[in-house]
Amino acid sequence: MVKKIGIIGLGNVGSATLKSLAEYSSLVSRRTSLKIEIKLACDLRKGKGKIAAKYGVAFTTDVSKVLNDPQIDTIVELIGGIEPAYSFIKEALLKGKNIVTANKALLAERGQELFFLARKVGKNIGFEASVCGAIPLIKSISEGLVSCEIKKIYGILNGTTNYILYKMGQEKIDFSSALRRAQKKGFAEKKPHFDISGIDTLNKLCILSYLCFGVWPSLKRVYTEGISKIDMLDIVYAEELNYRVKLLAIAKRQGKFLDLRVHPTLVPIGHPLSGVSSTYNAVYLDTQPAGDLLFYGRGAGGMATSSAVISDIVSMSLDSKISERKKENIILKNITTVRSRYYMRFMAYDEPGVLAKVSKILASQHISIASVTQKEKLRRKFVPVIMITHAAKESDMQKALLRIDKLSVIKSPSQIIRIEDF
Amino acid sequence: MVKKIGIIGLGNVGSATLKSLAEYSSLVSRRTSLKIEIKLACDLRKGKGKIAAKYGVAFTTDVSKVLNDPQIDTIVELIGGIEPAYSFIKEALLKGKNIVTANKALLAERGQELFFLARKVGKNIGFEASVCGAIPLIKSISEGLVSCEIKKIYGILNGTTNYILYKMGQEKIDFSSALRRAQKKGFAEKKPHFDISGIDTLNKLCILSYLCFGVWPSLKRVYTEGISKIDMLDIVYAEELNYRVKLLAIAKRQGKFLDLRVHPTLVPIGHPLSGVSSTYNAVYLDTQPAGDLLFYGRGAGGMATSSAVISDIVSMSLDSKISERKKENIILKNITTVRSRYYMRFMAYDEPGVLAKVSKILASQHISIASVTQKEKLRRKFVPVIMITHAAKESDMQKALLRIDKLSVIKSPSQIIRIEDF
Repeated sequence: MVKKIGIIGLGNVGSATLKSLAEYSSLVSRRTSLKIEIKLACDLRKGKGKIAAKYGVAFTTDVSKVLNDPQIDTIVELIGGIEPAYSFIKEALLKGKNIVTANKALLAERGQELFFLARKVGKNIGFEASVCGAIPLIKSISEGLVSCEIKKIYGILNGTTNYILYKMGQEKIDFSSALRRAQKKGFAEKKPHFDISGIDTLNKLCILSYLCFGVWPSLKRVYTEGISKIDMLDIVYAEELNYRVKLLAIAKRQGKFLDLRVHPTLVPIGHPLSGVSSTYNAVYLDTQPAGDLLFYGRGAGGMATSSAVISDIVSMSLDSKISERKKENIILKNITTVRSRYYMRFMAYDEPGVLAKVSKILASQHISIASVTQKEKLRRKFVPVIMITHAAKESDMQKALLRIDKLSVIKSPSQIIRIEDF
Repeated sequence: MVKKIGIIGLGNVGSATLKSLAEYSSLVSRRTSLKIEIKLACDLRKGKGKIAAKYGVAFTTDVSKVLNDPQIDTIVELIGGIEPAYSFIKEALLKGKNIVTANKALLAERGQELFFLARKVGKNIGFEASVCGAIPLIKSISEGLVSCEIKKIYGILNGTTNYILYKMGQEKIDFSSALRRAQKKGFAEKKPHFDISGIDTLNKLCILSYLCFGVWPSLKRVYTEGISKIDMLDIVYAEELNYRVKLLAIAKRQGKFLDLRVHPTLVPIGHPLSGVSSTYNAVYLDTQPAGDLLFYGRGAGGMATSSAVISDIVSMSLDSKISERKKENIILKNITTVRSRYYMRFMAYDEPGVLAKVSKILASQHISIASVTQKEKLRRKFVPVIMITHAAKESDMQKALLRIDKLSVIKSPSQIIRIEDF
């Protein structure tokens, strides 16, 4: 069977997909009897024609030629961003094409509408490449775990931030040095805001929320905290306490309630997620009845991601079972109601009574302390104090923090990092 | 769409599948519009009828009633072992039924014949549950990585042996104590030979070999070494050298050559496989272009495995793309030609000249030593000597070992464990 596709966008993933198909499509044919043929590749940048020519693929800068080609059955959108990707996908669906996309930002923002439209016109949207690049996570959840309830998701979904946190700990360097190193290595963009701020992780969490719970959350309602506030000291102290700092996407289903969050988190050393280093991605799932599962691999990189794109093209050709997820009866939890243990770091003046003042405030907010360590004096006259608390409510912690940071003995702002006990 | 199935074998996985379908089939219907109906369950043991009755499923002890029911489209074989499972599956295929099975021993031994027959009659065999229980590994490799070359597989495929090795290190107990503990916890059978000897791991490696390379190896031709020879000391010393001892299934494709092996292996601490503890399973794949991937989860347990069984039933109903793998032009490598680094442990008499004698033999076999540690004397007059070698050929190592163990200063037999550098 011959499958004719069109590709829009010849950036990193787009050009890698051309290369991958050139190198591995004979393997696909041998395994599935399917022959994938790229009928037309499109990019607004004329210069990209060279890449298409290299792989013997017809090229155009006119997207309507791809959208209107009746022989093209599936359109692979690899532009990224909201527009014009959104308009192209919408038009393609209305013209009866299936879609394969790696566009997490678009799906997180307009996924609900696009999946609704796809169902209306009886077409499919393949999105394996949108979360965790090369890891066959979408297929594993939607098909492999088709009979499972997903109770919890913990994901390291962004390679840039994982690399920065990893380097800060490994080389004992601060955030901005680690960021520069990531940029030098090509692991972070020049404008790294989307990664650093946790937005990219949030986008992917939204897609997983749809897949696992049928819920497209409003992006603004999901608590999202990036990594720029993490001090190298925190990573060192956490390590001494047997924890690693990871930027986690968290989803917990508790009956009708769904707790979605993105924030730096202390992960116990020994937990499989704690060992996910460098630019790797991993997703840990707590399910019934399959138990806990971990999927680990490359989350980015053109060639790695192209394998997910091709897997979607093949799956779409051989069946049509990526059915629309039904919305479940679920209420989004606000982070202020969430309970967890906390790592706290105060920079205190080295004078008597500091601990008494801090612990009095914590006690008044029903927060009890599990351990305290006072470190050697550093940075002129400040003394770092590290606390681990027992489980406490986020709103109580926030109130305590406001009051603690107003103490004259504390150099504000203090640091809190949530601990997950898995 | 309603899908009528028959289940043969109501042991651990069989009865869990009934329970799972009772609890989660409404979830499956909501997600896929597929209604799975168990038309008939069968077990030779009359007493198993109670389990069927509990879930409102019709029961018979006469397998021909299942095989001859024209309404049953898919037969789920959960008996285990070669016969009568083999005859039932063969008959079922000839009667035009699809098969879902968890039977790794049967597939490893007769898989080639059964898959050939399935293709001839245009039916499918789903075998997700046969390797790594709840982990959607078969689907991930066959569909998610459809465009990828698998270059290397490293698998912890047996929960019993992983638990024993883990407990030996964690509690500093010897092999037989750890085995008894595993038996007490229900993690090892009363007759644990299949697990301990590596045969169960070998069976699963054969299935992965078929899936990844299209090759069904002859079981006898794959080097297989179990864990009963591992001493608690080895685990302790390996840990001091920053390694964990794991029973690995290894497959490496090098051009035309395929290197398949099962043996205890030193895995560097920090590698994702080193952290796979207790009864967990994990598979690490080195692929092109998807890079390296790890899949981790429960490898056994009835309820966990039932999710793989149900996933196969669903996949089979919605498509028919688990195509037969083509045999590739591949030659099995003999372990004697394999090169690796080695951990060696000698129990030597505490007298001068021991190291000189041992290292002379190693040098004469072209084996060079990377590090030596002589431990405190223990167990009467023996001194443990630990060596790490540079890469050496297995046949050279075996020859050296024979000669070393004949030395009068050595308490025979010495220990070797292969090191994988990943």
